[in-house]
Formats: sequence, C-alpha cells, structure tokens
Amino acid sequence: MRIECIAIGTELLTTRRVDTNSVWLGERLASMGLGFGRKTVVGDSREDLAGLFREALGRSDLILTTGGLGPTFDDFTKELFAEILGADLAEDAGSRADMMTFYAARNRVPPQVNFKQALIPVGAEPLRNPVGTAPGIWWLDPPGHPGVRIVMLPGVPREMKRMWEEQVEPRLRPLAGKAVHTLRMVVAGVPESNLDERTQVVRQQHGHLDWTILANLSQVELLARGPDPAALEAARTDFKPVLGTDLVSVGDGNLEDAVLDLLKARGETLAVAESMSGGLLASRLTAIPGASAAFLGGAIVYTVKAKAAFLGLDPSWLRTVGTVSEACASAMAEAARQRLGATWGLGICGNAGPGTEGGAPVGTTFIVLAGPDGTVVRSPTLAGDRAEVQLRSTALALDLLRRQMLLLG
Amino acid sequence: MRIECIAIGTELLTTRRVDTNSVWLGERLASMGLGFGRKTVVGDSREDLAGLFREALGRSDLILTTGGLGPTFDDFTKELFAEILGADLAEDAGSRADMMTFYAARNRVPPQVNFKQALIPVGAEPLRNPVGTAPGIWWLDPPGHPGVRIVMLPGVPREMKRMWEEQVEPRLRPLAGKAVHTLRMVVAGVPESNLDERTQVVRQQHGHLDWTILANLSQVELLARGPDPAALEAARTDFKPVLGTDLVSVGDGNLEDAVLDLLKARGETLAVAESMSGGLLASRLTAIPGASAAFLGGAIVYTVKAKAAFLGLDPSWLRTVGTVSEACASAMAEAARQRLGATWGLGICGNAGPGTEGGAPVGTTFIVLAGPDGTVVRSPTLAGDRAEVQLRSTALALDLLRRQMLLLG
Repeated sequence: MRIECIAIGTELLTTRRVDTNSVWLGERLASMGLGFGRKTVVGDSREDLAGLFREALGRSDLILTTGGLGPTFDDFTKELFAEILGADLAEDAGSRADMMTFYAARNRVPPQVNFKQALIPVGAEPLRNPVGTAPGIWWLDPPGHPGVRIVMLPGVPREMKRMWEEQVEPRLRPLAGKAVHTLRMVVAGVPESNLDERTQVVRQQHGHLDWTILANLSQVELLARGPDPAALEAARTDFKPVLGTDLVSVGDGNLEDAVLDLLKARGETLAVAESMSGGLLASRLTAIPGASAAFLGGAIVYTVKAKAAFLGLDPSWLRTVGTVSEACASAMAEAARQRLGATWGLGICGNAGPGTEGGAPVGTTFIVLAGPDGTVVRSPTLAGDRAEVQLRSTALALDLLRRQMLLLG
Repeated sequence: MRIECIAIGTELLTTRRVDTNSVWLGERLASMGLGFGRKTVVGDSREDLAGLFREALGRSDLILTTGGLGPTFDDFTKELFAEILGADLAEDAGSRADMMTFYAARNRVPPQVNFKQALIPVGAEPLRNPVGTAPGIWWLDPPGHPGVRIVMLPGVPREMKRMWEEQVEPRLRPLAGKAVHTLRMVVAGVPESNLDERTQVVRQQHGHLDWTILANLSQVELLARGPDPAALEAARTDFKPVLGTDLVSVGDGNLEDAVLDLLKARGETLAVAESMSGGLLASRLTAIPGASAAFLGGAIVYTVKAKAAFLGLDPSWLRTVGTVSEACASAMAEAARQRLGATWGLGICGNAGPGTEGGAPVGTTFIVLAGPDGTVVRSPTLAGDRAEVQLRSTALALDLLRRQMLLLG
C-alpha cells in the first residue's frame, strides 16, 4: 500500500511552525506495519494544492492530509478535493449539530464563516471532532479512484491526534501490514564508509531485507527491516563475524548502554575525570537509568585549581607537563580511579577549540584509560567544531573502555 | 522565484530521524526575504525520486536537495538528476583531491566506494565540503531548463550548514528579496502560555511584526520578524518593562551564555556539584567557548563515595540527612565552592527517575546556590521523564544563579 502525507499550511513552510503532525502519524503507521512513501508540506495556494492532490491521486492508495479544514478564507482542502474529483459538497446535519453544541457549551454563537465546516463531499464520511469545530473526512473509493482512501485531518495537533486514534486507526486496522521487524546493529570505532564496504557482500546475501546505514558522531547503526524474524536472526548471525568487536550491541541500546552493561556484567565500576569534554562523558552515562550501579562519579577539572582540589594533582607538576598532555590525562584517570576506588578510570584532556590552548591545535585530544593492569592511551586529533570534538572524545573514551573489557574477556 | 526543498532519505520518513535541515534552510531563506513554496521528504527510491525531480524541474526556479550524496549504495541524488537531464558525470579533480586530503589528514586511504563522490554532472559546479567527503552541487541552467538552479547539499546537518553559509548563500544573494530582520528575546522561569498572555497587548501594539513563541525545556524564545530594524528596536524597548528580570538576553545567546556573561562581567566564578543531573550542568556550560574564564570545574557525585572523595562530605552524615535532601544539596554546593575557591557553588540532587530513590518520588529536586552571603534554595518537583527532569533541573539552577546576580546588581 502506497501512503503519502500532505501537510497544508503556509506557516509550515516558514520557521514559525514545524510540521510535527506527519512525524506523529509516521510513528502511528509504523506501529501498524505501514509507512509513508512521501511527505509533502505545501502552502495555502489553490494551484499548488490542486497539482499535488492530482499527483497524489495518481500514485498513492492512502492520502493523508493535515490542515486546511478550518473556517477561514485560506482553508479549502475539502473543497479542492471535491472539485478535482467532481463531487458536490452537502451540509452534514451531524457536523452542524456538533458545531452548535460546541459553541453552546461556550455560551457563544458560531460565526457565519464556520458553517462551511459542516459541508462534506458527497460520498465521503465526516469524522467527528470532539475537541474542535472542524470535522475530518474519510473518503473511500472517491469517484474515478476505486480502492483509494483519502483521509483529511485538522492541522491542530490535539484535534488531529484524537481523530486519528478514535476514528481513523480503527478504520485502517484491516489494512495493517504484516508487522515489520527491525534488526539494529550498533557499531563503534569504524567510519560509515568503511562499514559500508566491509558489509557489502553480507548485505547482498541478505538483499531481501531493507538496509539502512545511519551514522552520528558517536556510532554507526546498521538497520535491517523485514517481515520475517527468522531472516533477521539469520542476518544477525552472518554479521557477527564480519563486525567482530566493532559490534557494540544488537537492539535498542547505544554505546553508553553497552559500556554500562559490560561493567555491570563484570561487577566493575568506572570513575571519570574530564577536562576538555567538560562533563559530557558523565552526562552521557548518567542519562541511562541505573547508571549508578557501575558509574561512581567524576571530576570536571576545567582548571588547574580543580585538578588540584578534586584529584590532588600538583599544580607545579601540571604546569611542567602541560594540561593538554598524555601525562595529564593519565594522572587524571588514575586519580579519579583511586579516589573513588573504581575498577576503571577514564581521563580526557585536550583542546576542543575554538582557540589554540597552550600551543595545542584544536582537536588535540588525550584519552587515558587506567585499569587494574595499567593504562591504555589514545591521542587522536579530532575533527570538527567544539561540540563535535567534545562529543567525539567521549565516544572514543567509551569505546576504548568497551574494547578493553572485551579484550580481557 | 519559486523555491522547493527535497529532503532525501528513507530514515526521514520514519521516526528514527526528523528532517531538521529544511527548517534551518527555511530560516536562512527567510533572512534573505525568500521562502519555500513546497517541501518534500522522500525515501531512497529511484522511482519516487525520479518522479519528484521531474515535477520539481517543471515548477520551480530553485530546487534545493539534502541527502543522497554519500558514498553508499543508497545515495544517488547526483546520478539521478544527471540521468533525467541527460548530462554525463565526470570526475572533478578538485573534489578528488579534497577527498584524498581529508583521508590523508586522518592517516587513512579512502575506501573505493568513496570515489563516486568526486563525480560531478557535466555543466554543474562542485561545492567543496570542508567538513566531510561529499561535495555538493551548484547547477545553474541545467540542460533544457534555463534559469533554473539546482542545489544539492549533503544530509549531514553540519556539512549542509557550512556549505550553505559559505558557498550557496553568497551565490543566491543577488536574488535575495527585501532583507528580513529578527528580534530574539530569550526568557526563562516563565511558562510559554503565561508569556503568551502577558505579552499579548504589547505584541498587538507591534502587530505589523511577525511574532512567534518557541519553548523548550530550558527557556522560551519570543521572536519578531520584520523588514524595518527601527520597528524591531521599538518592540525591544516596549518589551523590556513587560519581561523584567525574566528576560535572559536579546540576540543569539541562550541561558548558559547569559550566566557566563554575567559571571565574567562581575569577575566572579562558579563551581558545581551534581548528583541527579550527572554532569549535564557542567556540560552545558563547557559547551560555550571561553567558559573556563568563569567556570572552574565540578564534581559529579553520583554515589556517597564520590561525595566523600571529591567534596569531603561525611558518609555517615549523608546517610542521616539522605542524599536526596536540601541539606545534601547545600553541603555539595558549599563544598564545591570552597574547594575551588569559587564565588558561587551550585549543588543539585534529587531523583530523575525512573524508580523512586530513598523514598523520594520521581522529579523531587533540590537545587542550592551557595554564595558569598549564604545560600538560596529551590526544591521543585519537576515533571517529565529522566532526560526532561535532568534538563529542567540544570535550567532552574542556571536561572537561580542568573536571578541572584541580577538581584545583587
């Protein structure tokens, strides 16, 4: 079934209002195993809308519109569809009664312009609006388009949502797709293009699945979708050897979840000391419920004073080795680990920019993992602006710990 | 000039990723007095895309695409446009050199699949990508469509934005409409609906401006747009008394910028101690370049052990007063302040959920600001899920410090 969404409203083309309706509708459709093939946002222009409606009628089985059902001069979704399809409009007594009740409850009389909202294309059904005055439209088999369904919903999110849940979803349920299952594999420490190349052959072997690669600064996701859970399970089995230890997790979790899960499984704990990343590493970990079972705490040591006060590092020694150095990151990691009695300590220092710091170019990064058997160091030069460098440094730190735990088995 | 935006990517049709690029582009166009007539989101389907590209070429003068320029199998924006327009693709030496440089800087060799990114339709110009490997495309007067401009941008927001700002906007400037100016007023500590009501009269007095209210969990923005800078300045003057100390700043900054600016102007410093917010407060502050001039550091004291090790709090005393208490937040704030010799100390503890902690319901929050003249306390019950409660707690803490500094004058 080909489904498209048309969000109508000039304001949705500006920055004044963002179309969130179609995102919500996409989520509801996905829960029914359905999904959009296309979403369009278009202004209140008769010509643009008429062109788009004609195109949609030619290519889609289910057309969802939001907006343009109101009483004002720039609302004409219903009228335009009726015109294109050669259908008349007729007043629906129930919709008119609903409107009178709505206004009576507020001790008001409907403005004259509002009555056009009770006009419904002949052959279509009105969808009652329990929280507003504009009824929606359910139009099955419109003239010349057997099998097509047009669903017109109000643009006001709470009216749209209620109408969808109570009246549209039940009508669509018989069409619900076979549930679509997803296999999500999270990979870290590998660029997107490398992952693409490495997995090309095995993806082709599972070419009946629908594949997507999504990368962010922290991790890459490989997503497969298909109706058959066994096919997804087979793909998972075949991908394991290809991804090796680059595979962070399978399922909903992200890099930080995987690290916390590994720590908990091993009965180990982590303390951090952050200079350049300024609390972002701790924040990513503590965003996960239950983090405190493995994450003990951290020191954000943005200044020499803080490095001395929270970690006991010697200010004159720090000035000698420099606060952007492997020695500094190493001392930070070890001090955090020892002060909290943690299994692992992670220290991050460097220069996130925008200016150079102590002669270190932007992106200079030192990450040290201190553990029971000594330290492991990463000292990459990270690309990007301040926010990117900070985020990348925390991803590398998390992945360093993850790999070290895997290595120890 | 008819402008349309086409956002390409199957993931944008799902709930996994929302198209924010077109919203940003709409804002930039508005600043040039231009705007979209239509926005479409479409998946990585050759057939769908080809149909849409043909339609767009028939109706728009400027076609902006985002996405589909990457190296992977599901990227084919350039190839498809070239095919439709009957243009060949040829390798662009500069783009290839850029890619080699990009990889060389990372001590890597580009994967073979990446070289297709250097292919450019004959007759089009490449747009260099200083932060990634996929060049964009600027195509003026494509075959059979004189006067049309096709601009293809990467889907990665930071790459798209930089390319737009540095290379596309300058090329479009001669076509710009009358410039639109923006007045942005940031307000904290006031719900959106309250702000709406309170500013209704003064907004009506400046009704020739185009008004928007945008709220997030940290602050509310009041935006006015119009062609006349003097009218915006007049609005700013009239709003000042209405907003009073709720007005955080006018211009680009946010709550955290305002706090750092106030601290710097006063020559004062801040230290933080975070339990519930787990580093988010420090992370928000250190995201701002130059934060170290006023932000000294912090302790993330997620456990009793960390509260003892980093802040010197007595574990048995903590167990008596409870770690979700005003006494605990107060001791945290004061210890952070004293240990770092800061003017101000902020302490946050509470329960962000999902479970109850030490009998405290989810949302229980204690924020204490310790300063030269004693402490100020806020103990709200915050609404929302874990991430929301954490974010709200940091916004309240920042606003508490901001108001206290204003109060002291």
